[in-house]
Amino acid sequence: MPTERFKHVTVIGVGLLGGSAALAIKAHDSRVKIAGVGRRQASLDVALKAGAIDTTHLEPQQVVAQTDLVILATPVGAFERYLRALAGLLPGRALVTDVGSVKAGVVRAAERVLGKGGPFVGSHPMAGSEEKGVAFARADLFAGATCVITPTDHTPARATRRIERLWQALGMRTVRMRPAAHDRVIARVSHLPHVLAALLMMLPRRGELDVASTGFQDATRLAGGDPEMWRDILVTNRKHILAAIDAFDDDLMHLRDLVELADTPGIEKFLALAKKRREATIAQALPDRRVAME
Amino acid sequence: MPTERFKHVTVIGVGLLGGSAALAIKAHDSRVKIAGVGRRQASLDVALKAGAIDTTHLEPQQVVAQTDLVILATPVGAFERYLRALAGLLPGRALVTDVGSVKAGVVRAAERVLGKGGPFVGSHPMAGSEEKGVAFARADLFAGATCVITPTDHTPARATRRIERLWQALGMRTVRMRPAAHDRVIARVSHLPHVLAALLMMLPRRGELDVASTGFQDATRLAGGDPEMWRDILVTNRKHILAAIDAFDDDLMHLRDLVELADTPGIEKFLALAKKRREATIAQALPDRRVAME
Repeated sequence: MPTERFKHVTVIGVGLLGGSAALAIKAHDSRVKIAGVGRRQASLDVALKAGAIDTTHLEPQQVVAQTDLVILATPVGAFERYLRALAGLLPGRALVTDVGSVKAGVVRAAERVLGKGGPFVGSHPMAGSEEKGVAFARADLFAGATCVITPTDHTPARATRRIERLWQALGMRTVRMRPAAHDRVIARVSHLPHVLAALLMMLPRRGELDVASTGFQDATRLAGGDPEMWRDILVTNRKHILAAIDAFDDDLMHLRDLVELADTPGIEKFLALAKKRREATIAQALPDRRVAME
Repeated sequence: MPTERFKHVTVIGVGLLGGSAALAIKAHDSRVKIAGVGRRQASLDVALKAGAIDTTHLEPQQVVAQTDLVILATPVGAFERYLRALAGLLPGRALVTDVGSVKAGVVRAAERVLGKGGPFVGSHPMAGSEEKGVAFARADLFAGATCVITPTDHTPARATRRIERLWQALGMRTVRMRPAAHDRVIARVSHLPHVLAALLMMLPRRGELDVASTGFQDATRLAGGDPEMWRDILVTNRKHILAAIDAFDDDLMHLRDLVELADTPGIEKFLALAKKRREATIAQALPDRRVAME
């Protein structure tokens, strides 16, 4: 926003992510006016009271003519309905982005509805928490995390740069990827881990979780995510998620063989490689919290 | 230790867990003398310098006649060798316990080697970290965590109570379980999560981890565990781990069907149940760290 700031922003879906984006934008530039759009007036009023937004609207048509940036922050399944509501109403200078965890279908829908080479540039700010709702929104939710930007061959370079600068201004590192490549990678590093965490929660029987350690709690933290949001992600990105599940299942069955055969050297080799990969990539990429674990 | 304290303790395997137990015992009662036993003099010297132990020994035979508590803290695969080295040398009042993550085989071996109704009471203090070695040992590693105590029908009640009081004195909550029940439960809440974390690390290709979020980091933290220690755990508890893998795989294939069919209500129901289970059990049992995640 330093070079060419957005003055009137519309956030559609003022929950944890939308609310945090609004708070972060205001923290960066208090002159920005933010309109909040949502289905429930009560949630919008909470966001208004929290200072995240300046006006509340049940439909985006009421404000988009005066906006120069729209941020879609509802569950992904609701994006297309809102894109249709925006079509034809946006000023020429306006850009549209989103915070969705799935990109190919979203970008396709946006180019179909708003036009190719149009105002849409997909974003996936990789931040969040297991909490839901604007009550948990924070201006620093995105700080220090990565945002994947997914322009297509039709996206104007200047639009991509403006959206990149937006997230950078909120403290994020930006990375460009093609929408389909994003979805394939994120299926493996985000969506599959979410599925596994939820499945892990289902296995122990009544009372067995009494002896779960902080290790179990770490491994299942993702299972605390919003079911409605994640339902849409799993369905929208199902092609890549199915591929990730199948690849994972192959690996699981291979390890199962090693365990059944009591292949001590094979098991140690596998565990050592996993540990090495974790140390080489994750530990350096992200600040690691040293915590007790089983 | 308040009612009947241990005065001379031998810790076999002075790594993260053994070293932390030694430090915790000394923090609780500075009069206790602790003998450290290990394969490598260099590691023992680090433990000595850190104040965790008072003397160093390459073989337990050198000290056990003067000990009233032995704590086995090597990888589980080395337990039987050390139990054989202790046999016939322990004073009548001495107790032996361990910190292993697998109990049935360990307890069987201990009763076979040291005698039923003998000095052994199995312990599984559910604490640790992804670090290895005495350099990372801390006196408060066990504080606030759960320790499972696994007496058998042959274990003298007084021995069980003394071992319980030991861990309680180090700040732990103790829970009694039968060895086989412990192994079945821990396969689901600890060993399987470890396997899944390691497998998750293997899936992304080169460079893809650049976009991994703190959520991925949480989900894979267990993969940082010591390969040698975990190799022994997976092999020793393979019966229950195979059962846990199979049950998990059934659930995974069921969820795969829901995703393939784009069964939106079915997926949401599953995710909501997982979230509810997590909130009902984990969030209340353990202090939750609120952290950014994908």
